[in-house]
Amino acid sequence: MRDVYLAQLDRLADTLAGMCDRVAEAMQHATQALLNADLQLAEQVISDDVGTDELRAAAEEQAFALLALQAPVATDLRVVVSAIHAAGDIERMGDLALHVAQAARRRHPSLVLPDEVAPYFAEMGRVGVALAHKAAEVIRSRDAEAATELEADDDAMDDLHRHMFTVLMDRNWSHGVGPAVDITLLARFYERYADHAVAVARRIVYVVTGRMPGPLTV
Amino acid sequence: MRDVYLAQLDRLADTLAGMCDRVAEAMQHATQALLNADLQLAEQVISDDVGTDELRAAAEEQAFALLALQAPVATDLRVVVSAIHAAGDIERMGDLALHVAQAARRRHPSLVLPDEVAPYFAEMGRVGVALAHKAAEVIRSRDAEAATELEADDDAMDDLHRHMFTVLMDRNWSHGVGPAVDITLLARFYERYADHAVAVARRIVYVVTGRMPGPLTV
Repeated sequence: MRDVYLAQLDRLADTLAGMCDRVAEAMQHATQALLNADLQLAEQVISDDVGTDELRAAAEEQAFALLALQAPVATDLRVVVSAIHAAGDIERMGDLALHVAQAARRRHPSLVLPDEVAPYFAEMGRVGVALAHKAAEVIRSRDAEAATELEADDDAMDDLHRHMFTVLMDRNWSHGVGPAVDITLLARFYERYADHAVAVARRIVYVVTGRMPGPLTV
Repeated sequence: MRDVYLAQLDRLADTLAGMCDRVAEAMQHATQALLNADLQLAEQVISDDVGTDELRAAAEEQAFALLALQAPVATDLRVVVSAIHAAGDIERMGDLALHVAQAARRRHPSLVLPDEVAPYFAEMGRVGVALAHKAAEVIRSRDAEAATELEADDDAMDDLHRHMFTVLMDRNWSHGVGPAVDITLLARFYERYADHAVAVARRIVYVVTGRMPGPLTV
């Protein structure tokens, strides 16, 4: 019985890790689409998102099967519910990548970003994608140490996010309100994406250690 | 056994409905603080949010107790997991009200909003607060019909949200980039608040009917 439980739990972890890699790719492509006004790539990210939603549904089904067939109690129960929460976080990361792709599509064939802010978004994309891949690794390795690394990476994202606002608020900003509105929302999408990756890692820490790290800053 | 299960489920529903009323009040106060640059009220919303987080933890504990003691299967299991999701949505609504209050605090003693956009935010606040109270009612009544009403109310929020962008992008916008950035984020907070209220209602529809309504637009 215990072996069946652990095997099913491994399968659920595989599903979640696969979801993380998938939303990492989605954000990588969405960022490329944003930086290059690549309509085809944007469309691909948008149409592929349904696959992430399906994986989330599959993860929930696997979790339900564990709950119904194994009737786990105490820590095991919390592990399964944490996995259900993690699946929700990862699906939301996919939605945020989709929002980035939609911004690229909306302004096509124009570029959304003025040249001087493009490098910040290239970097936010890089940090976000790395966070999602690290979350996948943490799920696969259940390495609580590695999970804490994600918080430092998220600090880098927060710094980039804050810096974007400094650029927008600067007197030398010459691109007017329209691009500023786009950039404000886009920067928020990247920041939230990173927050959800950290939330996933924190749930894994909980699964591994039985203790939740301190409160998430929102 | 069944009676105990149903009594515990009622208690969990009461907790969730109470959370909805609480985040409705938080958004009402946050909107007042925003419109009147009321620092004291903003501080109150910010410090009260921890109470919502505690209620979310209490709801999860009640759900865990149900899962562990009653080992529900099939529909009952999905009901309890839906309640766990709903608790997460409602907690997030509280966070978004807190973000509105933080914006009011950040610009105090100045007003965040130029006079001409203040009425839109008064209306977004009114719609958001009504949505949260309706979600509470839906949880208490388990009335799937009432739940579908929330979708229409959410359309009103989406219209207001879209209209805000039209105002910002207008050539006559004279307030520059700074207020536009604030308004962009604030409008997003209200829109997301409404989305989560609708998500809560949809979960209740699922609990009552056993079927999830069509996909949420994001």
